[in-house]
Amino acid sequence: MNTKVLFNEIKKKQSFLCVGLDINQDLFPDKLRDDPNKIFNFCKSIIDATAEYCVAYKINIAFFEAYGVKGWNYLEKITDYLNNYYPEMFTIADAKRADIGNTSKRYAKAFFDHLNFNSITVVPYMGVDSVEPFLNYKERYTILLALTSNRGAADFQLLSLGDKKLYEHIIEKSLTWKNSDQLMFVVGATRPDALIKIRKLIPENFLLVPGIGAQGGNLEDVANNGLNHQCGILVNSSRAIIYASKENNYEEKAGLEAKQIQQKMKDLLFKHNII
Amino acid sequence: MNTKVLFNEIKKKQSFLCVGLDINQDLFPDKLRDDPNKIFNFCKSIIDATAEYCVAYKINIAFFEAYGVKGWNYLEKITDYLNNYYPEMFTIADAKRADIGNTSKRYAKAFFDHLNFNSITVVPYMGVDSVEPFLNYKERYTILLALTSNRGAADFQLLSLGDKKLYEHIIEKSLTWKNSDQLMFVVGATRPDALIKIRKLIPENFLLVPGIGAQGGNLEDVANNGLNHQCGILVNSSRAIIYASKENNYEEKAGLEAKQIQQKMKDLLFKHNII
Repeated sequence: MNTKVLFNEIKKKQSFLCVGLDINQDLFPDKLRDDPNKIFNFCKSIIDATAEYCVAYKINIAFFEAYGVKGWNYLEKITDYLNNYYPEMFTIADAKRADIGNTSKRYAKAFFDHLNFNSITVVPYMGVDSVEPFLNYKERYTILLALTSNRGAADFQLLSLGDKKLYEHIIEKSLTWKNSDQLMFVVGATRPDALIKIRKLIPENFLLVPGIGAQGGNLEDVANNGLNHQCGILVNSSRAIIYASKENNYEEKAGLEAKQIQQKMKDLLFKHNII
Repeated sequence: MNTKVLFNEIKKKQSFLCVGLDINQDLFPDKLRDDPNKIFNFCKSIIDATAEYCVAYKINIAFFEAYGVKGWNYLEKITDYLNNYYPEMFTIADAKRADIGNTSKRYAKAFFDHLNFNSITVVPYMGVDSVEPFLNYKERYTILLALTSNRGAADFQLLSLGDKKLYEHIIEKSLTWKNSDQLMFVVGATRPDALIKIRKLIPENFLLVPGIGAQGGNLEDVANNGLNHQCGILVNSSRAIIYASKENNYEEKAGLEAKQIQQKMKDLLFKHNII
């Protein structure tokens, strides 16, 4: 999978939606309560109901890891399901990993070789040799945290170094790394002004934009500030879609929610002459 | 487990050694080659051979995660073994996690509740709300990355913000967070001058110091610059101990290597009037 294929999917589906699979059993529909295989079955039904309207799935690894071996078992089953039934989907391991080179290599092995994800979110704090092992994989994408959507982003990411913020410095530096065309960047939807600056710094790279819906970001602002000639953004929505309903028809509701966002995205793609 | 108990163990064993379990099957002794349970058996035999000389074990999660479910199975077995047979050991999940609060909570659950580690290494980049869920656990320690031992540390950690480096800014800020007495900090042994500055910023907190041995740091420098009245440092060694030999008596060699370091640490603890 590369970004050309991804852009083709975006055009085909008229969508740049990424559905985030954040598994929280407390929010599962009642009818799954006694299902021993409920984590897989919930994910499978959400995927089947939303695949028509999205081009990517972001799997939040923490939500599986919290269950230890059992959780990793589900992770393998769900990535297998996506790889077998939806090979055109761009898959994101939202893992926020990185360590010294020798160790990052093992994380790359876990998420690229073992689970066969197309991409992984990576933390830049430890610098070039902590990110290189991910970038060494051809046609896999390293999604570097730039400016995140949470409150604490202000603590360090927005610190000023001369006339630049730390996150700008990180983006600029990362562009000098080998295979930097395989970089994407996380930019929270909650900071529309920053998105304009970031798009100027990186006109070509894809941005993964979390934070619309529950976290308060606005889709139209994100599109106006972030879209480029090959779309160049994936907007993630997790809770608003996958927990749209706890009722028996929860899949249908999730599908409807995804469709509503896709319809808005379609309008925005037309408006910006991308399709 | 709290730092008082840890200091008692340090005094009892006359050691501030942490043994790092970085599992690399290519470096395993030949006699384990056909053992179907070799990852567990290797770790168990290294633990049994070195426990007398160290006060902590640092488990590098990536090396297990690289094997998926199988790896997590081993992780559960090894942490069970440590918790059951060596409950006095300070255990470190070297996981370098952190995400938005809701997600960090799941990582804390994985490593504190599920695997019952005493501590976890955490990345500060996403700020206060990404670290709080770890700090909310009583008598568990959050080991924040300050200045790491790798080459790439220079990319961002050493950037100047006014008269401070980024890592100094992070340390100072983190001291304002709730339960900051449960913070420890990673400081690479490869940067002895920085250790002096850091010890002034945080006279009380424990430091986890990787980078002696293979990475070039010097134990005596680390002790001179880092020791405080309750020792206050854990010096990690991984490869130099656990892969000291590939021969049949590899456990013995690992034990001897750990003992040699412990003897040096004993001298340093006496020299600095800590024991």
